Amino acid sequence: MSLVVQKYGGSSVSDADALRRVARRVAATVREGNQVVVTVSAMGDTTDELIDLAHAVNGSPDPREMDLLLTAGERISMSLLAMAIHAEGIPAQAFTGAQAGVITSEHHGRARIIDVAPARLLTALEAGKVAIVAGFQGINPVADDVTTLGRGGSDTTAVALAAALKADVCEIYTDVDGVFTADPRIVPTARKLDRITYDEMLDLAASGAKVLMPRCVEYARRFSVPIHVRSSFSGLEGTWVRDDTGEGDTMEDPIIAGVAHDRSEAKITVIGLPDVPGTAARLFEAVAKADVNIDMIVQNVSAVQTGLTDISFTLPSTRVNDALAAIEADGAEIGYQEVVTDEQIGKVSLVGAGMRSNAGVSAKFFAALRDAGVNIEMISTSDIRISVVTRAELVEKAVRAVHTAFDLDSIQGEAVVYGGTGR
Amino acid sequence: MSLVVQKYGGSSVSDADALRRVARRVAATVREGNQVVVTVSAMGDTTDELIDLAHAVNGSPDPREMDLLLTAGERISMSLLAMAIHAEGIPAQAFTGAQAGVITSEHHGRARIIDVAPARLLTALEAGKVAIVAGFQGINPVADDVTTLGRGGSDTTAVALAAALKADVCEIYTDVDGVFTADPRIVPTARKLDRITYDEMLDLAASGAKVLMPRCVEYARRFSVPIHVRSSFSGLEGTWVRDDTGEGDTMEDPIIAGVAHDRSEAKITVIGLPDVPGTAARLFEAVAKADVNIDMIVQNVSAVQTGLTDISFTLPSTRVNDALAAIEADGAEIGYQEVVTDEQIGKVSLVGAGMRSNAGVSAKFFAALRDAGVNIEMISTSDIRISVVTRAELVEKAVRAVHTAFDLDSIQGEAVVYGGTGR
Repeated sequence: MSLVVQKYGGSSVSDADALRRVARRVAATVREGNQVVVTVSAMGDTTDELIDLAHAVNGSPDPREMDLLLTAGERISMSLLAMAIHAEGIPAQAFTGAQAGVITSEHHGRARIIDVAPARLLTALEAGKVAIVAGFQGINPVADDVTTLGRGGSDTTAVALAAALKADVCEIYTDVDGVFTADPRIVPTARKLDRITYDEMLDLAASGAKVLMPRCVEYARRFSVPIHVRSSFSGLEGTWVRDDTGEGDTMEDPIIAGVAHDRSEAKITVIGLPDVPGTAARLFEAVAKADVNIDMIVQNVSAVQTGLTDISFTLPSTRVNDALAAIEADGAEIGYQEVVTDEQIGKVSLVGAGMRSNAGVSAKFFAALRDAGVNIEMISTSDIRISVVTRAELVEKAVRAVHTAFDLDSIQGEAVVYGGTGR
Repeated sequence: MSLVVQKYGGSSVSDADALRRVARRVAATVREGNQVVVTVSAMGDTTDELIDLAHAVNGSPDPREMDLLLTAGERISMSLLAMAIHAEGIPAQAFTGAQAGVITSEHHGRARIIDVAPARLLTALEAGKVAIVAGFQGINPVADDVTTLGRGGSDTTAVALAAALKADVCEIYTDVDGVFTADPRIVPTARKLDRITYDEMLDLAASGAKVLMPRCVEYARRFSVPIHVRSSFSGLEGTWVRDDTGEGDTMEDPIIAGVAHDRSEAKITVIGLPDVPGTAARLFEAVAKADVNIDMIVQNVSAVQTGLTDISFTLPSTRVNDALAAIEADGAEIGYQEVVTDEQIGKVSLVGAGMRSNAGVSAKFFAALRDAGVNIEMISTSDIRISVVTRAELVEKAVRAVHTAFDLDSIQGEAVVYGGTGR
């Protein structure tokens, strides 16, 4: 008997029909002889609707009350899913984050999971019940206040429960068939990956692949939780995310896992900074105070005549105003001439653990971009990733060029199955 | 400085505009120098929509999961109301039933409040904050499971909080201007009462007046909580429900508080019962096992020839099938010939503490019905109430006739103000 944690996103539980479909899948997993814990997101657009209501009554809602509000979404979906599973003749019990023992920090809207104390879940499982757990939420036990985990929270809940319960697998159900070598909407020949390492998945996710959030993958890597990303519509075998066990024929392991892209970032260039020690520290301390996450950073070679330099960095477009305000507030201390913002950028990344031992990957990547006429504005690398920033309108062309150059296109005539919105 | 508990129903918080209006009223109460605790129902039709969703996935949803589901409704409205009050520049904090210390029995869907431990509310009040509490819900601390209080639950929450906090008043905001001498939709000349005793309000509520639920009035009477029923739209002085203090000029106290009616009941007649001791006990024990509340009971004079008798009783129409099943299940033990159901009945009740000391009230009541051509099928009385059952289609005519006979009509030309749906 295996212990399976399943996570269903909002599009998998968007209405009563969808809930019944999920209930049938859960029931089938139980009938196959497994113990099942299910984590569920809010139904469809519920969270967005609640956020709209909040902004209709208050331009900047209090984070504590916002968490109380948003957690109603998963409370609704988890209760309904438990009822739908009952209707399949399978005993089930729904639990809030607090009841499931999801202990978090006090940071409303972006709480971190500190511990999972799943006593009630274990009792339910031992009694032969499916345990349904509200995703995205937990409890700050110091204040006895409900918290939410922020973006990707439900996936993280599922992985955290799987780790605490020592589950055999954490199945993340979504509206696509797994992790692809590129976004199939941009590259119709993209292939579904059968397996991928945590490191590769982490870099793909950090580079814009939306199927899993980096945070959830980090958690899974730390606790060695095998993740199986699969479709809630097709039920086909999806993509396994796990450590490279070395059991397979490594000769056949691909060098490259995939090509990711991201058009959600903007670039800020701070011009005319004094080229003296401590300049970058002062600039990014100011930005960090505004709680803005920075992605890539490039510092120009200093102009000898003036002793001044420029620094460019990328960040989520949604945080540009906060970052600009923070830089302006510390302007006297930082000392700069001008700040320029560019929101028309896009990032293209090539990810693969095989890069470590394969020379020439970078050269091939840059050559593919050159041949496609894609100009490179910024470059950043890790040992398993190369990323470049280019114009937003060139991103699709760049992704297709790189995908082809690294022989990632599926064989002519091979069916590519991806469901739902084709994300 | 007074401590005021305010309760707003679903129609008072139906959308963002309504929430902002309630927030302004709360803010005004704070600015007048009061400490304020607010109990709030789910927005508009939220509860009904959640019930519909539950029935779409499961014909008979589990009560525990149903409570988890329904409590999402107040969680949404209380969070939004706190945000809307913040927007008025007033500090406020929202609390679930559990956080507010509303301790209940374990009966899902119809839990009783066992205790209120309002430590967090007192802390919030001492910090100068408005405390917003989710109505209708509490916590069963034994199982650590959320419960709901059933019909009229939010009013009961408000009264229970007012009792625990020793509040100066519990204001129940609704869509009418107070308690009327009759339903203004049926009797356009009905007058708003300035005051009414707990006993009268209890009999009016039990007789079909929907402005307050009997349970909430019972709670208020037990703990001597003064209730002020008033409109959330007009803001006018409404009706005070409290003990008769004897401070007023009792000469002017009206004999009659009002005329109530109820078309939500049905009548079951069990024919051919053995007229021996224990028959009624066996019949009503069977009905009680089905958890059906009985209202009026009439036993016919026994027919000497046969030794058989008939018993009629009234009950909520929604429970007829459960009662019939219970009677049939114990049929052999009860021993009867036939059961007849009549759903076309209506009840008209006259309520007034002054009846106790005024002879002739019953006679005048029956005369008014006779003159209006209303046939009486059942009669029941308490020391401050007379109720009759008649045909459902005669109820309106009966209410108007009795209202006029007891001089309850407002003086010609006097404006009768009632808002919203005019309930």
